[in-house]
Amino acid sequence: MKKLFFLLSWLVFATCQAQQPTKQAENSGIVTVATNPLPFLQDSLFISQLYQQTLLEGKCYENLRYLCTKIGARFTATPQAEQAVRWTKSLLDSMLLDSVWLQLVQVPQWKRGKAEKAHLVSKKGKIAVPICALGGSVGTGAKGLQAGVIEVKKIEELAVLGEEKIKGKIVFFNQALNVTYFDTFEAYGEAGKPRRNGASEAAKLGAVGVVVRSLASNLDDLPHTGSMTYQLNVRQIPAVAISTNGAELLSKQLVADPTLQFFMQTNCQRLADTTSHNVIGEIRGTEKPNEIIVVGGHLDSWDLAQGAHDDGAGCMQAVEVLQLFKKFNIRPRRTIRVILYMNEEFGNRGGITYSQYAEQVQNSVKHLAALESDRGGFTPRGFNVDATPDKVQAVAQWLPLLKPYGIYFAQKGGAGVDITPLKVVGTTLIGYVPDSQRYFDLHHTTQDTFDKVNQRELKLGAAGMAALVYLIDKYGI
Amino acid sequence: MKKLFFLLSWLVFATCQAQQPTKQAENSGIVTVATNPLPFLQDSLFISQLYQQTLLEGKCYENLRYLCTKIGARFTATPQAEQAVRWTKSLLDSMLLDSVWLQLVQVPQWKRGKAEKAHLVSKKGKIAVPICALGGSVGTGAKGLQAGVIEVKKIEELAVLGEEKIKGKIVFFNQALNVTYFDTFEAYGEAGKPRRNGASEAAKLGAVGVVVRSLASNLDDLPHTGSMTYQLNVRQIPAVAISTNGAELLSKQLVADPTLQFFMQTNCQRLADTTSHNVIGEIRGTEKPNEIIVVGGHLDSWDLAQGAHDDGAGCMQAVEVLQLFKKFNIRPRRTIRVILYMNEEFGNRGGITYSQYAEQVQNSVKHLAALESDRGGFTPRGFNVDATPDKVQAVAQWLPLLKPYGIYFAQKGGAGVDITPLKVVGTTLIGYVPDSQRYFDLHHTTQDTFDKVNQRELKLGAAGMAALVYLIDKYGI
Repeated sequence: MKKLFFLLSWLVFATCQAQQPTKQAENSGIVTVATNPLPFLQDSLFISQLYQQTLLEGKCYENLRYLCTKIGARFTATPQAEQAVRWTKSLLDSMLLDSVWLQLVQVPQWKRGKAEKAHLVSKKGKIAVPICALGGSVGTGAKGLQAGVIEVKKIEELAVLGEEKIKGKIVFFNQALNVTYFDTFEAYGEAGKPRRNGASEAAKLGAVGVVVRSLASNLDDLPHTGSMTYQLNVRQIPAVAISTNGAELLSKQLVADPTLQFFMQTNCQRLADTTSHNVIGEIRGTEKPNEIIVVGGHLDSWDLAQGAHDDGAGCMQAVEVLQLFKKFNIRPRRTIRVILYMNEEFGNRGGITYSQYAEQVQNSVKHLAALESDRGGFTPRGFNVDATPDKVQAVAQWLPLLKPYGIYFAQKGGAGVDITPLKVVGTTLIGYVPDSQRYFDLHHTTQDTFDKVNQRELKLGAAGMAALVYLIDKYGI
Repeated sequence: MKKLFFLLSWLVFATCQAQQPTKQAENSGIVTVATNPLPFLQDSLFISQLYQQTLLEGKCYENLRYLCTKIGARFTATPQAEQAVRWTKSLLDSMLLDSVWLQLVQVPQWKRGKAEKAHLVSKKGKIAVPICALGGSVGTGAKGLQAGVIEVKKIEELAVLGEEKIKGKIVFFNQALNVTYFDTFEAYGEAGKPRRNGASEAAKLGAVGVVVRSLASNLDDLPHTGSMTYQLNVRQIPAVAISTNGAELLSKQLVADPTLQFFMQTNCQRLADTTSHNVIGEIRGTEKPNEIIVVGGHLDSWDLAQGAHDDGAGCMQAVEVLQLFKKFNIRPRRTIRVILYMNEEFGNRGGITYSQYAEQVQNSVKHLAALESDRGGFTPRGFNVDATPDKVQAVAQWLPLLKPYGIYFAQKGGAGVDITPLKVVGTTLIGYVPDSQRYFDLHHTTQDTFDKVNQRELKLGAAGMAALVYLIDKYGI
């Protein structure tokens, strides 16, 4: 009954819109609505079928179970990452797509090594704290590193303190996520600077190591890893993440005993580049085969956990989109291409390599749009569009079709790390945006495991992505 | 920056609305928007503060921790329920409200007893299956009950089968939740008929017991309890819920061996009514103290778990609303009254008793609006309004203020069991609607525990409720 009511409401809405003066075309700031409501009514019925099919028989949840529990962590340049490449290729092969292939990607190599540990050494003795090396960091070596600690919140404070107070010390970046932001990704982006660039900035002033507060929404004992980079011609010093509880403890102990020292031992190392692959499959378009709509996620994960939300979920949702096209026997007008990118977490070589290919072929092949799911497999909210305002509005015009399934906004915003390099060829970049409240409790930790993914939430995302790809294919963008 | 952008957008939006021809008043189907944008701009700023305060220093999460882990399950007429009454009264006392009191409620008494168990008895032997008695059911007694089984999906099928096929049998209601509905409460309402009324309908045709498939969104081994009632002058037969995996197994085994028998043993019993209390506190209105805005949840839970989502979450969110009014030193125009109802799960005596009081005093005290949170402490989505269309629109007009925090709809719909009896005094009934995808994985099971509640999701709900109460108090409804 509710669905019927919605359809009728939509018909009335679309009809009213059609009767409005058609000023829309003159003003790119206004949502453009098709003047004939009937195609949208058909779309509404079809999208309802897409959701029903996914919720009843969608494969993404069971595929994700396999990826997470049978293959597990898929850190770039590990045997498990290669196993994931082979398994997802065979999965695409089994779907009888028009083409399935692997794209060679040169990838960096970094190994965590074993026996990471850390403790505070204060007047009262040693207190162990949970840490992990940041991805890309040099190790301390077997002897470890021990030094006094200086605490700052933000990178900008380093210049104020100057070399005199920093030299020979371990810099402790204690910048917490701003919990007052509704969108936790906004807080993550803001608080993430010390993790990404803190080591080199501290080393320039003579620091011997950095300890970075985990980028977590909550207080607990999990260290959150993540990538860091060194600037050229700056001494490379070890960098670790400390759990939020550990950060709180360290901060308090520093007040009680400013002379305390921090000991850390990590055994990570950078190795020579090697090769891996992006996994790609497509259904060829019937009318415009050289216009490509990409849908994807990244196949690699961090080494600490199964990468269930980050980003096994996105990969299996992207695969589901093509599975739905096959299930309903839709021959798309344009080519729908799924890409499971390699190495998002630690270099983005998969995304860069694919965009280089897209650039090479741009005279004959147009990458019209790219949709990525890399914000976890949580309940749907909307889409971010990284393109001109008219493209944001193009997506927004379809929201009435998606609102019954919890997708209610299209806004200007970051789309996804893997697809962002496609900007060079003018692709409309779209990020699927699920609810972000729980993501940074487990992001880049040992707890990003399959059991944290809810089947319905995951499937609703896949169906919403399929609906958007269907609409872009049908109407263009 | 985003907040500032929102505020400016809102100003532009409200100004544009103000410039529209003011036909709105003539048509109750159209959202009414205030013609002066400035009050709403102030509201937007204040609501932002409400959210910031709640996310930074809100007490609901830690209060819920205490309620769930120190007191635990709070089934009506148990010592824990009484402990919860005393603790929440002292919590309200500590907030320095204008009045705090207990309202006497006559409550029913039912005890589960120990050693619930069940198994299939087929040609191949016994297979144990997870069950629990439905609340209100008679027990089987120590000997248990064993009989052949007849499976149906819906109550309506009983009449087709008739007494001949049902007499002496245990009826197995195997109606699954329809997973294709976006709103899992819609599926719950539809599939819940056998649990609520199946026993008496089966007994009329000679059944000796009923086994009801758990009202769960997923497949697992948890039986979900819930209330059932017997019709007058119909034989009372034992009723149990079986886990969804158990239901699947039973259904398959019945195909393989239609002569299989089902054994169940439950030791539950109904006892004489006793007394308990609704817990009530209020901040008196300065201008219209006899206009009441109620905000509440239910303090009782099922006996199987901590009742974290159902409905400790709603209670602690309701308390937070008043805490926010105190924190910001808001003297409301109307009286804001928090009510923590007793016995929602098993008779709704708290809600009924309060509405009887409201009816008695209606000549001098107007219950303007009542807001309930009883759909779990999940991430926000919207509000259901159980009132005339103009009230739905009254809530909808404020959505632009709440959309930045994930609240994007106001729709006609069920508000909450506890507040529904207030319909007799014409109260506008409003239900806070969080995301429903995960709720029926754990609803009424042993897994409804504190660790399943996300702090941010819970707090966002509390802040959204506070914002709505603030707006209703300021503008009326």
